[in-house]
Amino acid sequence: MRYVIGVDLGGTKFAVGAVAVDGSRTEAFDSAPTHAERDADDVVARIASMVRSVMDRTIAATAAAPDDFLGLGIGAPGPLRRADGMVVVAPNLGWRDYPLRDRLQSATGLATVLDNDANCATLAEWWVGAAKGATTVVGMTIGTGIGGGIILEGRLLHGASDVAGEIGHTTIETSGRRCKCGNYGCLEAYASGPAIADRAREALEGNGASMLRTMTGGDLRALTAEHVYNAARDGDEVAKEVVRDTARYLGTGVANLLNIVNPEVVVLAGGVTDAGELILAPLRAEVRKRAFRPAVDAVRIVPGALGSRAGVIGAAAAFLAERRV
Amino acid sequence: MRYVIGVDLGGTKFAVGAVAVDGSRTEAFDSAPTHAERDADDVVARIASMVRSVMDRTIAATAAAPDDFLGLGIGAPGPLRRADGMVVVAPNLGWRDYPLRDRLQSATGLATVLDNDANCATLAEWWVGAAKGATTVVGMTIGTGIGGGIILEGRLLHGASDVAGEIGHTTIETSGRRCKCGNYGCLEAYASGPAIADRAREALEGNGASMLRTMTGGDLRALTAEHVYNAARDGDEVAKEVVRDTARYLGTGVANLLNIVNPEVVVLAGGVTDAGELILAPLRAEVRKRAFRPAVDAVRIVPGALGSRAGVIGAAAAFLAERRV
Repeated sequence: MRYVIGVDLGGTKFAVGAVAVDGSRTEAFDSAPTHAERDADDVVARIASMVRSVMDRTIAATAAAPDDFLGLGIGAPGPLRRADGMVVVAPNLGWRDYPLRDRLQSATGLATVLDNDANCATLAEWWVGAAKGATTVVGMTIGTGIGGGIILEGRLLHGASDVAGEIGHTTIETSGRRCKCGNYGCLEAYASGPAIADRAREALEGNGASMLRTMTGGDLRALTAEHVYNAARDGDEVAKEVVRDTARYLGTGVANLLNIVNPEVVVLAGGVTDAGELILAPLRAEVRKRAFRPAVDAVRIVPGALGSRAGVIGAAAAFLAERRV
Repeated sequence: MRYVIGVDLGGTKFAVGAVAVDGSRTEAFDSAPTHAERDADDVVARIASMVRSVMDRTIAATAAAPDDFLGLGIGAPGPLRRADGMVVVAPNLGWRDYPLRDRLQSATGLATVLDNDANCATLAEWWVGAAKGATTVVGMTIGTGIGGGIILEGRLLHGASDVAGEIGHTTIETSGRRCKCGNYGCLEAYASGPAIADRAREALEGNGASMLRTMTGGDLRALTAEHVYNAARDGDEVAKEVVRDTARYLGTGVANLLNIVNPEVVVLAGGVTDAGELILAPLRAEVRKRAFRPAVDAVRIVPGALGSRAGVIGAAAAFLAERRV
């Protein structure tokens, strides 16, 4: 079997694995903290070191030879430029105009392809996950931010300047909440993990009783989206309302995508999917209310099947797609 | 030269022309009222009669022979099903589950292809108009409703059930104005012609002076978007604010498309473009505020070049695209 190294680079941690070219398995999956506050070259050196270790472990565990590693795909937060492999701006990494692809290629000796992290996750779910084989796919990764990817006939839509699929930064309230991108009313400003925690804190500004106050030992700054899901599951009324609103916002964003792209599958991934049907059921109801009937009838809205490995698998898939191996 | 008959079917009128297969010209362009309140078969009979007349006049005016007409494309309001040529629901026509393609094919004897009217208009602007030769194009037709089309690498994006491109029915205010589609906060509910007139009437509910009161002879029910543009051009403050808001709403919708599709060209067509730079300048400013910089830098936002003939030319192009002539 031949392999492609997949790298998933996030603001908090990065992950590496050796992905079989048929997508059937990932060998020697590993991850480590990014420490983005250090120098970008330092991050690249540590990624390259993990790549070597993943290759060695794959060779040891399988019949693979050093020549069986075709190359490396890396998914990174955007905006980026695929043509010259530059990370243009990455607020979560604190990088600007960094030649990530070429630095990593030099450090590993492997032919390297760079793509957006949410694009990679969507590509993985289409390749071997929840959207396998579908012609038209929309992926949304909902965590610290909201990323997205669009696949049409088996190919990622990149657009004119590699921005396509930035679903988190579409306006759902023209005069709404301020977003980190500088805009007002972005979907991300309502339904990312931190936005969910913010809205819960605001809901607690009244005097109503809520277990959210005690879950964090009284320090509401420590409140996370996960606390909100857990409290909602335990019947807490404040948390249930925050979750309902989250589903409504996400459903609005998904409905917009249904009327624009009309996909067969919408794959939801990231932290928000931990909430399961608590989010998915009202989200689907909102989509049914908002999107055209033929678009609703044609779509499946499902959680991702690949979990935290989607980024690594998809980065390898992005390499294979670009090199048309 | 060989020709394809293009038909543009709207709620108010329909138009027919003979479009040269290289898109270089349209012969014998003609139009007539739709009278949609009559039977659908009656509308088809009158379209077929105009098709015969357009063919006869084209034969008389050019060296064309009857065999030089390859077929017919028709653009109609959606939702529709291309596979079996059905108009599923057309509120502006009062039709439901009408086999438009087959009825027109029988009535004209020409091989017929059905597509969405806004898709056709966008395809025409890509083929021979303002977006000629661009790889990624978004078209918006802003009139009684707001339709849209998306072209990727020279092909219309239809999606899983022919709904793709329904830009007018994307939410820009989750709890906003009621839309005719049943949803709340659709772009169309803010920036279509009738929505512009509605917002102007609401603005006049205060006591402020405005020439809009006198332009319609005191009957504000007769107020149209065109009155608003004209008054704004003459410096009327109420009208100027309505136009500014319209540009802001449209700019929000366009910015969302930039972040989702990342096109090279956005073509705006329909009544709203009569307002010219009065709308376009603040619309572009709103897009710059809201969309990602690389997407803004990559796009041209321009009025359509084909005017009221876009639908006919694009319907012919849709025939050529589907039959791959």
